[in-house]
Amino acid sequence: MKLPKGFVASGVRAGIRKKRPDLGLIVAEETANAAAVFTKNLFQAAPVVLSKIAMKKSRGRVKAVVVNAGCANAVTGTEGTNAAKRVRTRAAELLKCAEEEIFLASTGVIGVVLPDKKVIETLPDAITRLSPGGGDAFSQAILTTDVGPKVAQATYTMGGKRGRVVGIAKGAGMIHPNMATMLAFVMTDANVAPAALQSSLKTAVDQSFNAISVDGDTSTNDTVLLLASGKLEASGDLTDFQRALNTVCRQLAWMIVRDGEGATRVMELEVRGARSDRDARAAAHAVATSPLVKTALHGGDPNWGRILAALGRSGARFSAKRVSLSAGPVTLVTNGEPVAYREKDAAKVFARERVPIVLDLGGGPASTVVLSSDLGHDYVSLNADYRS
Amino acid sequence: MKLPKGFVASGVRAGIRKKRPDLGLIVAEETANAAAVFTKNLFQAAPVVLSKIAMKKSRGRVKAVVVNAGCANAVTGTEGTNAAKRVRTRAAELLKCAEEEIFLASTGVIGVVLPDKKVIETLPDAITRLSPGGGDAFSQAILTTDVGPKVAQATYTMGGKRGRVVGIAKGAGMIHPNMATMLAFVMTDANVAPAALQSSLKTAVDQSFNAISVDGDTSTNDTVLLLASGKLEASGDLTDFQRALNTVCRQLAWMIVRDGEGATRVMELEVRGARSDRDARAAAHAVATSPLVKTALHGGDPNWGRILAALGRSGARFSAKRVSLSAGPVTLVTNGEPVAYREKDAAKVFARERVPIVLDLGGGPASTVVLSSDLGHDYVSLNADYRS
Repeated sequence: MKLPKGFVASGVRAGIRKKRPDLGLIVAEETANAAAVFTKNLFQAAPVVLSKIAMKKSRGRVKAVVVNAGCANAVTGTEGTNAAKRVRTRAAELLKCAEEEIFLASTGVIGVVLPDKKVIETLPDAITRLSPGGGDAFSQAILTTDVGPKVAQATYTMGGKRGRVVGIAKGAGMIHPNMATMLAFVMTDANVAPAALQSSLKTAVDQSFNAISVDGDTSTNDTVLLLASGKLEASGDLTDFQRALNTVCRQLAWMIVRDGEGATRVMELEVRGARSDRDARAAAHAVATSPLVKTALHGGDPNWGRILAALGRSGARFSAKRVSLSAGPVTLVTNGEPVAYREKDAAKVFARERVPIVLDLGGGPASTVVLSSDLGHDYVSLNADYRS
Repeated sequence: MKLPKGFVASGVRAGIRKKRPDLGLIVAEETANAAAVFTKNLFQAAPVVLSKIAMKKSRGRVKAVVVNAGCANAVTGTEGTNAAKRVRTRAAELLKCAEEEIFLASTGVIGVVLPDKKVIETLPDAITRLSPGGGDAFSQAILTTDVGPKVAQATYTMGGKRGRVVGIAKGAGMIHPNMATMLAFVMTDANVAPAALQSSLKTAVDQSFNAISVDGDTSTNDTVLLLASGKLEASGDLTDFQRALNTVCRQLAWMIVRDGEGATRVMELEVRGARSDRDARAAAHAVATSPLVKTALHGGDPNWGRILAALGRSGARFSAKRVSLSAGPVTLVTNGEPVAYREKDAAKVFARERVPIVLDLGGGPASTVVLSSDLGHDYVSLNADYRS
């Protein structure tokens, strides 16, 4: 896969992880306009803290992105911050840019200081290997427990010219409420100023990455970065660009859920009829994160009682007598009472790779959609001994 | 095990579950004073709704308790309510008491109407088998996915006489946030009025069953019932009775956590230094329910970064720079920075059957203690095909 004009990338092995590439680099030929969304977790990893400050200082300009897998460099105190700073200093020297134009991201185990020497020693190799086709190597180098790389692309037209949006992400995990770190790097050749980019990114993230992670349910390192090289050399209405950006972010979000650790299917849960957005989110959160719902989903078992039990303890305001529930074309509950249905029909829906569930609270105009993966044995295996 | 004076019990098979006893009966020789605590879930099972109303109508007097396993009779609408009412009517006829003196409880699959004919046909057999030594049969008949029965007892003195408290419970599951239905029936020979009993029960529940289930995290059927026969024929200060009641409830709560579906160890999480009770509970809830923390616990892996990551997204107010964390005697984090410790020492604590964790937010006087089981393969196996 070729990156949008103006970008080169590479992925190499720094030796942080055993036997896997673990250092990714994206460089803008000229400095790119940038927008970013960061984790809301109160423990923010050193690279998150540093990148936030850098983005302010550079006023949304980024020359290069240095990403490592295998170590989150989170909750590592002053030592961790200094390790990240040394990587940044060296990257800025090698790439001849200001330190605040270096964007850092890390993913991996929490509580371990970044082995910055390994990164610093490997940076020259990463720079040597930079190429417009280096997105694939980059997409491999940022993975942790992911089953595979996640790349999505779309085109848009602006001012009569055709531009491109390419996104590369990593992330797997039970998504809710314990998302493994989600990183997404979206590049475009569009010529858009940082402020407008930020607004576009927020719009795209709200309907993609935020549909898999309810507010606040974030790891210490989550980061979504949007870089615009301006190489398209056209300007005009952003509508089609926004559409392409939304598409890329939604595709990446879907891939992340589908790649949930051990996931075999995805529930697309729509909560309707809530009194407020907050109620809709509380209901969706309780159902989407319920281990009992997730294990039933894993077993392909239309055990809808668990969905209602989770709703009942969600804190969302509703009247039990107005609640309706359906799975695909099969109505299970209407106005709080079970409906006669054929078990076979419901089982068929729960056996799909995408299981569409609509939960109508019958009490108001608010709604939300959340994607959630199932909970299987592989999740336990992966996470019971992730560090060893 | 012998029940306190004034009670007889039995456990028989009504055929709701395959090949297992599934109908339990407790009868007070004379009508007992009673107090009860019910689920806060907005979907309340038919037996919960009926028992609540009955307790009000009878002013806290109970003649008999009819409990079935294999069917929760929750979210079953009018049909479910009528089925439960028919069981109650027949029990009242057979036991020659008022309908409101019959207390109902159910546990099992949600969304299926109670097969009341099976219960009604089996009631005479259950009555025939009633005996002061029937607590063991009762304790077996109310189980679902429990590994084994849960019985606890203690003695107290009042007015110079020695009385007894006997509790029988069922419940297993990941506790947080998806407790399998928890039922507990505590009997005593004490002579205490219903209002005082309710106050004693609340005190005991707050430090036992509520330490394993944060407010609102309840199933559709959870019920704790306290019955007092008054047979001790003594009155006086309730202090020692309260102590015995607390002990029995705490023992039962511990058994329930330890019997979490697939559980191999229990985390005793103390959150200290929170600004408010609400903050303490939010922090404890996020950590205790985190699948990543629970799988690490299962693997005996001191992956403390997951504990802090869960805290960071909990919504509790705190300053990351003041947080300290320790596992048993091993300090892991002080004032937000990792402390050098020997991996071997931390691993030793995480390999215990009880893993004591202290999370100090360093910001206030509030604290809470929560017990939480680990998340292992057996949990997935049990819940992915519970209905089949």
